[in-house]
Amino acid sequence: MTQIAIVLYPRFTALDFVGPYEVLRMLPDADVRFVAHEPGPVVADSGVLVVGATHSFDETPSPDLILIPGGPGCFGAAKDEKLREWLRTVGPAAQWTTSVCTGSVVLAAAGLLDGLRATTHWSSLTALSLYGVTAVSDERVVRAGPDERIVTAAGVSAGIDLALWLADQIAGTKKAEAIQLAIEYDPQPHLDSGHRSKASVATITASTVMLSRDLDKPEVLKLSTRLLWDRALATVRARR
Amino acid sequence: MTQIAIVLYPRFTALDFVGPYEVLRMLPDADVRFVAHEPGPVVADSGVLVVGATHSFDETPSPDLILIPGGPGCFGAAKDEKLREWLRTVGPAAQWTTSVCTGSVVLAAAGLLDGLRATTHWSSLTALSLYGVTAVSDERVVRAGPDERIVTAAGVSAGIDLALWLADQIAGTKKAEAIQLAIEYDPQPHLDSGHRSKASVATITASTVMLSRDLDKPEVLKLSTRLLWDRALATVRARR
Repeated sequence: MTQIAIVLYPRFTALDFVGPYEVLRMLPDADVRFVAHEPGPVVADSGVLVVGATHSFDETPSPDLILIPGGPGCFGAAKDEKLREWLRTVGPAAQWTTSVCTGSVVLAAAGLLDGLRATTHWSSLTALSLYGVTAVSDERVVRAGPDERIVTAAGVSAGIDLALWLADQIAGTKKAEAIQLAIEYDPQPHLDSGHRSKASVATITASTVMLSRDLDKPEVLKLSTRLLWDRALATVRARR
Repeated sequence: MTQIAIVLYPRFTALDFVGPYEVLRMLPDADVRFVAHEPGPVVADSGVLVVGATHSFDETPSPDLILIPGGPGCFGAAKDEKLREWLRTVGPAAQWTTSVCTGSVVLAAAGLLDGLRATTHWSSLTALSLYGVTAVSDERVVRAGPDERIVTAAGVSAGIDLALWLADQIAGTKKAEAIQLAIEYDPQPHLDSGHRSKASVATITASTVMLSRDLDKPEVLKLSTRLLWDRALATVRARR
């Protein structure tokens, strides 16, 4: 069995992990679980989508593949010592440690991306670089670390590309192609502004405003500000 | 407010609706809800993903947009008289009636696609045509009905393209582009077998076997067989 542990935390962005889940669950002998502090419902950033965590971190001591999604809740998750400790323990032993979107901020906070190249949602590249990570803006899937087993993907929908690549690595190209057909992943967006390099300044501004609806909540602001302070102070202290 | 009602039923395929949800929830004044017989947890086809229905059908008498996902559970949903009745009542009044993947089989069973063009997952085109629907295999998003307000999408991941197109129609191209950037929808699959026309015979076979893992369960088989019988008998009886 390939145990696939998808991490859930409050205010996740659902597509970040549902895309990869739909691909990875079709791997031969895939054993997918959703892990959190304890089994039970976890609420998405939208406030209307609720997904169940099936297992606790303690019940998941040796996953083969870890996937951590992003979302406005990533700043809270990055401050979650229990989650960071779990990532530090199971990450190095797992065959694959992966993230989608701002999930990489949580991996960075746990120290798993120290000195490595990684990507994240375009709006959080600066936050990622504060952790001493080389934040990559022009690659959708970035491989790094020992044997390139730490793989980070860009924002939200990039998780599908990440998972298809992982499926190829884990089960071979033939299986990956069959999965791609099973989910009919032959994307045909009728617009072409899915990357910052392709979008107008007006679109980038409108998108930033749109995203800030989720980020502007006081508790999220407080956590992200706190995180920036922590990193800034840590940098200053390291200089002395 | 634009009330967006996403239908849930047991054995749904999650990406079918999580893709569109992630796009549509960013529309100005979007009011997304997940509807089922009653509020509560609903289990996906994988058996490991649980999503919460937030409202009952009865509590949702006038949605502006209906989206019904596909999945092996579609055959059960197609036999669900309460759901069919709800679709027949709210469908014609809604501004948009939409489906992803085999969600169109449920719309067809409710009689909403009579004599229209529609699409579905490539593996279920025949099932769809049994309802007197012109099943389209080479368009990812198909518009039909009065004012083209009934929109069906191909399998699983096609829901993202559907939703981006809907966002464009509902809120304009600028908003849709901002949403596309927000979810960084700049797809770059490293393989190219996402449509049957691009896949080898071996890939189609492997994919069919893969999908049958979900479909081969006795209760699903029984329901889909029953559905085929019902349609065949209805056709015979209509001839007399």
